[in-house]
Amino acid sequence: MKVKKIFLPESELPRQWYNILPDLPNPMEPPLHPGTGNPVGPDDLAPIFPMQLIEQEVSQDQYIDIPEEILEKYLIWRPTPLYRAYNLERHLDTPAKIYFKNEGVSPAGSHKPNTALAQAYYNKIAGTKRITTETGAGQWGSALSMCCALFGLECKVFMVKVSYNQKPYRRIMMETWGANCVPSPSPETKAGQAILEKDPDSPGSLGIAISEAVEAAVMDENSKYSLGSVLNHVLLHQTVNGLECEKQLEIAGDYPDVIIGCAGGGSNFAGMALPFVRDKINGKDIDIIAVEPTSCPTMTRGPFAYDFGDTVQMTPLLPMHTLGHSFVPAPIHAGGLRYHGMAPIVSQLLLSDLIRAEAVPQLETFQAGITLARTEGFISAPETDHAVAVAIREAIKAKEEGKEKVILFNWSGHGLVDMAAYEAYIQGKLSDHSLPEEEIHRALGDIEPLPKPQQYRKGTIS
Amino acid sequence: MKVKKIFLPESELPRQWYNILPDLPNPMEPPLHPGTGNPVGPDDLAPIFPMQLIEQEVSQDQYIDIPEEILEKYLIWRPTPLYRAYNLERHLDTPAKIYFKNEGVSPAGSHKPNTALAQAYYNKIAGTKRITTETGAGQWGSALSMCCALFGLECKVFMVKVSYNQKPYRRIMMETWGANCVPSPSPETKAGQAILEKDPDSPGSLGIAISEAVEAAVMDENSKYSLGSVLNHVLLHQTVNGLECEKQLEIAGDYPDVIIGCAGGGSNFAGMALPFVRDKINGKDIDIIAVEPTSCPTMTRGPFAYDFGDTVQMTPLLPMHTLGHSFVPAPIHAGGLRYHGMAPIVSQLLLSDLIRAEAVPQLETFQAGITLARTEGFISAPETDHAVAVAIREAIKAKEEGKEKVILFNWSGHGLVDMAAYEAYIQGKLSDHSLPEEEIHRALGDIEPLPKPQQYRKGTIS
Repeated sequence: MKVKKIFLPESELPRQWYNILPDLPNPMEPPLHPGTGNPVGPDDLAPIFPMQLIEQEVSQDQYIDIPEEILEKYLIWRPTPLYRAYNLERHLDTPAKIYFKNEGVSPAGSHKPNTALAQAYYNKIAGTKRITTETGAGQWGSALSMCCALFGLECKVFMVKVSYNQKPYRRIMMETWGANCVPSPSPETKAGQAILEKDPDSPGSLGIAISEAVEAAVMDENSKYSLGSVLNHVLLHQTVNGLECEKQLEIAGDYPDVIIGCAGGGSNFAGMALPFVRDKINGKDIDIIAVEPTSCPTMTRGPFAYDFGDTVQMTPLLPMHTLGHSFVPAPIHAGGLRYHGMAPIVSQLLLSDLIRAEAVPQLETFQAGITLARTEGFISAPETDHAVAVAIREAIKAKEEGKEKVILFNWSGHGLVDMAAYEAYIQGKLSDHSLPEEEIHRALGDIEPLPKPQQYRKGTIS
Repeated sequence: MKVKKIFLPESELPRQWYNILPDLPNPMEPPLHPGTGNPVGPDDLAPIFPMQLIEQEVSQDQYIDIPEEILEKYLIWRPTPLYRAYNLERHLDTPAKIYFKNEGVSPAGSHKPNTALAQAYYNKIAGTKRITTETGAGQWGSALSMCCALFGLECKVFMVKVSYNQKPYRRIMMETWGANCVPSPSPETKAGQAILEKDPDSPGSLGIAISEAVEAAVMDENSKYSLGSVLNHVLLHQTVNGLECEKQLEIAGDYPDVIIGCAGGGSNFAGMALPFVRDKINGKDIDIIAVEPTSCPTMTRGPFAYDFGDTVQMTPLLPMHTLGHSFVPAPIHAGGLRYHGMAPIVSQLLLSDLIRAEAVPQLETFQAGITLARTEGFISAPETDHAVAVAIREAIKAKEEGKEKVILFNWSGHGLVDMAAYEAYIQGKLSDHSLPEEEIHRALGDIEPLPKPQQYRKGTIS
């Protein structure tokens, strides 16, 4: 019988995260203070994040030890299994070998706890009593709630009101893990009060929820704020996944020709890709693809520029691919991919041609998800279906070229809490919402692209 | 670092199911034909089930080979991990070691595919084109839909109408896997038509849905019917789980003092317990506990008697613990435990004192589920919470007695599609619905208990 799942023994769980910052062929531009325009320093961030996370944000150490307490709790779901998708390969009649990493086995059902656990731990040892955060559809809020419960921390989640009302399951998950989840805008913060005064029926937005969560953290000395993607330390924590993949593929006796992950803020994609990007800088020939929706084509259509991380212009200016901070993506079901920007690290890799981006229309992603469900059993999150779609594209291409490629994609989470999206697709109620050219220009407004850095040269990393 | 999850290599996946029939200390009474009252023979069942499943229903072979095609697809989620619940142990401050088997990693989220896959396979090779079944809350219907997709069979699910309307997520899962799911009563069968004529707004019941599914199978030569619990061959297929547990505990260097599983129709409990019951017959000292709700106390309060498996008296009469086929359990959230009877094999073991039963009120089960979620991360199905509750009871007892017991419970599935139940509990809207004594007597009506068989004697099984 052929091996279907490559398990890594718990003793092989990576003991360090991989930090790509020192290996980048072109150095990163610094984030800028939204008020002064000067580079942001540790002191600016201290009211918001515990110091060890701030240090990780700018660390030049290539590897960073994972504390024992985090490792112990990672074992609740890690190492996650690497699957060989034999049934999908047979269905597509492709010579490609297709592997996928199953991050859906975590209790929250996705990759998000990889960083939520680390952030909860560093807050715990820094004396934080309560973590605040925002969440859209609830994937991130539920992951952080779970990890706060595991470390005995309070958790306060500002959930975008329209999702709070429409998607109760994620909210109840948060409450089951003991978190306090409130609809945003809320009367609990000045930011929320101001919005509610103007519009008591405001449906809320991720931008407003961020403002509320940051304010709630800053106003209470026992509270800190936590972010689920975009930042360097978040991507760092996610690399535990890619490092596992490396070991598992070695067990399988394969090395990937193509690596695929969906990208909203970028942490899911980066978590799998970064260790392989390191190999690519060292000379390996790998096609590394970040997948986004055609309705929110940050990487394939947005320029590289300094822009705010949020719509209300409170966060530092980040050097990234962006559609403009005022851009409101169409209401596609892959809520986690509806972000106007892209992690600075991922943006930098794109500029350096170390990775490439591909955009997929919504209908193709759900068709791909159904194909996967009927061959391999698993029902994917709508975000994850973007990676599945490109994996299928690549497998078909391999068939056309007659090449026996090794394709690896990140199955970032299951869709069992997102079934309404599948129903809408099956009933023919969805459309692609692909973004017309003129709307991109309108969204960008007066954003000024940064000059593209010099091309990197292949070299070796010590 | 202490080992958290005991994985079994795929090469150690059991190659045979364990059949307890030849090892039973007292032989089983035969099922009786509902019309004639004579023992049911293979010919009576041939229009409903494929012959290989009928043979398994009465087989006296102690082990039955698992076909290669089933093994290959079992690998999509099997072997499932055995967890050591260190965080729960610490929280309870118990000297007991608590293990749980995580059956929630299957794509459908529960143990149900263990038999759904086998039944789909045997139907496939018998030339069946379409399988019909009924489902209540949808756990079984979704598992069978998934397994039919994996073997390229059509699947038709009659879903109790009230659940069809109230719990859309499971229905959409079935449709995503390609099944045809209709609300029952439906106009597609005579049984459904008759009900709808009398009451067009009938909310349906499991009894009606069974009638429709059986009729749909019998009326179409390309269709067969499939049942998700109660029958001997269903319990047989589930033993793959207990056989894995045996191997995993051996790796851990432990042997269970207490084994716990929740029991609705009995297949989940039996799947874990039967291989250990064999050890018990051979002289091992194990406390094996089947857990049921106090609102549906089939084993703890119902007599052992011949009774129909369904409310409309179409099925054979089965020798089992029962509350009477007309008993309608209170609307607790653990829909899978709302069954008036109990698998004949499980009933027989109870009579022989090889296992015992414990009933738990609904509120205690949800409290247990929340305790597990906040210590071990995982949110359980409401059914599973019954096992969690008794595991906690036993761990507390071990603390009081100062004994270092080994407790093993079956974590039969996750609750991510059942979050409304947790919300109702958190909001204080649930009650226990424990069944008053007088209602039990009313439900039983004229059911005549069978004489209790002779006590078994401990012996050795070859």
